[in-house]
Amino acid sequence: MVAPETGVRASADSLAAGVLDGNRLLLARTISRVENQEADAHQILGSLYPHTGRAHIIGVTGAPGTGKSTLVTTLAQSYRQAGLTVAVVAIDPTSPFTGGALLGDRVRMRALAGDPGVFVRSMATRGSLGGLSKTTGDVVSVLDAAGFERIIVETVGVGQAEVEIASTAHTTLVVEAPGLGDEVQAIKAGILEIADVLVINKADRPGVDKTLRALEMMLEIEGGGPRLIRHHGQLIRVETPLEMAEEENRWRVIVMKTVATEGSGVFELRERIEAHRTWLLESGEMAIREQLRIANTLENIIRAELNRRILATLPSHGLTGHVVERIRHREDNPYSAADELLGKI
Amino acid sequence: MVAPETGVRASADSLAAGVLDGNRLLLARTISRVENQEADAHQILGSLYPHTGRAHIIGVTGAPGTGKSTLVTTLAQSYRQAGLTVAVVAIDPTSPFTGGALLGDRVRMRALAGDPGVFVRSMATRGSLGGLSKTTGDVVSVLDAAGFERIIVETVGVGQAEVEIASTAHTTLVVEAPGLGDEVQAIKAGILEIADVLVINKADRPGVDKTLRALEMMLEIEGGGPRLIRHHGQLIRVETPLEMAEEENRWRVIVMKTVATEGSGVFELRERIEAHRTWLLESGEMAIREQLRIANTLENIIRAELNRRILATLPSHGLTGHVVERIRHREDNPYSAADELLGKI
Repeated sequence: MVAPETGVRASADSLAAGVLDGNRLLLARTISRVENQEADAHQILGSLYPHTGRAHIIGVTGAPGTGKSTLVTTLAQSYRQAGLTVAVVAIDPTSPFTGGALLGDRVRMRALAGDPGVFVRSMATRGSLGGLSKTTGDVVSVLDAAGFERIIVETVGVGQAEVEIASTAHTTLVVEAPGLGDEVQAIKAGILEIADVLVINKADRPGVDKTLRALEMMLEIEGGGPRLIRHHGQLIRVETPLEMAEEENRWRVIVMKTVATEGSGVFELRERIEAHRTWLLESGEMAIREQLRIANTLENIIRAELNRRILATLPSHGLTGHVVERIRHREDNPYSAADELLGKI
Repeated sequence: MVAPETGVRASADSLAAGVLDGNRLLLARTISRVENQEADAHQILGSLYPHTGRAHIIGVTGAPGTGKSTLVTTLAQSYRQAGLTVAVVAIDPTSPFTGGALLGDRVRMRALAGDPGVFVRSMATRGSLGGLSKTTGDVVSVLDAAGFERIIVETVGVGQAEVEIASTAHTTLVVEAPGLGDEVQAIKAGILEIADVLVINKADRPGVDKTLRALEMMLEIEGGGPRLIRHHGQLIRVETPLEMAEEENRWRVIVMKTVATEGSGVFELRERIEAHRTWLLESGEMAIREQLRIANTLENIIRAELNRRILATLPSHGLTGHVVERIRHREDNPYSAADELLGKI
């Protein structure tokens, strides 16, 4: 019971205490509050933050139809078998109009239900620009503070979201599947740059060898030519073989095959993720990734807050009424009208 | 020849004049300048704006692997056969690290090359938040002013980008393909809300009937239950059948089948798009969509400019140095640090 006079502040404290105590109900409530960016969200997050930094964060991404959700579920089960606690954060593409989450993970829920060492949460993207990565990062921090040892963040789609997730994860898995067509094949090229581990799921399907060869060729080309490495917290291009020779201790991205529906290849995948974690810690790369994550978090918080302030100042009446009609009749243009509105802010 | 003393301003004017004169080289240069958001971009756009408002803008979206690019190419060819000029803007998902466009449309270029009534432009998304729709809208305005009668905007992926495109298009096509798996099926539900025409491309593939039934069922469900309509410029939910009865003149979303590689179904698709255009004009819906587009454009311009100002004020040294290290060692947390940095802005 919270005394009424303590108000919101005490409530934030009790939520944070509940999260640290392992109270599932309060954990769920805290996440909701953080996800909805309620007034005391930063206060809760601030008091949880000292308890973060222990979880290993695994990002899983890839095109629709690659079976990511099933793979994430079996990977979580595999971690449970290894005695580690797991939280899953699934970023669902949502309808920006109705706000409903579309990719129900009822199947996943069933497979993982009843195990106190697992926590699954779906998050809607809601469509607000810049909001995705901030809120996801915040939710991951809550789960980290709650003591989950592995946190899997799953995103669907192609584009910005993946990259944002990659910047909040320690280990990024990119999932492919055989026979998704040339267009998908082309997209891979971009996504390869964020992959620490490449997975061909649905590897019992025809065309798996073709996909494997295509991916390995891409990796070889990347290995032979200029490639991106993280260096003192910055992504830089290593152009010459000479520089590459100095990079003996670098991580090798390999292609792994899984059939998530049967669980095959999932143990090996888990081992590879753990090998990556060990490499991150031993090479000093973990500290660099943490610096990047923190800088990202800071920038996202600041950007979100400034965006909020901007929205509060925008003269909304000016955007919908007279000005729009003038522009529609080509008596004005959006560029000079925007200048005018900006002058009023 | 532009006299040197007239400087940037004269150059902007000569670019705008070139666009209106049908000069292809100056059109391409103008688009580059607008796309790169150079200093005089708004000046050029402002002088072109009075000449816009004649093109019909067609948004084409859908998951990777549905054959959108081929469909857009054959649709453009079909419009040419009907004697209309066409511009194609293809939004490519790019690697945010290297900045290179991935989905080369060399095939498309070949099919449409040498025809002065067609203009094709690929645009990289570049990953900057909020930048996509603004720049796309600006490029569409340039092509509109240049006199292209139909402008097709093609986007790949699932998520925010589509919706942004839908808000800049008059007619939105959502492209599906048979056998892309259940995950894609689920995503459709969200994308249905933005569709004016649904297309099953690759309709010669197995599973086409299943996909057709699934889509038609979704449309029926949508037709029978609550649905979204635009009403006085706002998206609202119509909850009861009673209200729906008042909506006799509303547009019916139907599912069309195409095999873009053979050109089959493309003529019918073009006819359907034109029927939608006629409906928009006759029902008064076009004016409402134009108001929405303009309000969106205004908001995007203002937001982009404010974001630019924010980035200029952000104390970048504070984000990478001492503060990050303090947070990494849990001596501070990102939320209080952000507050402090915000106080300094």
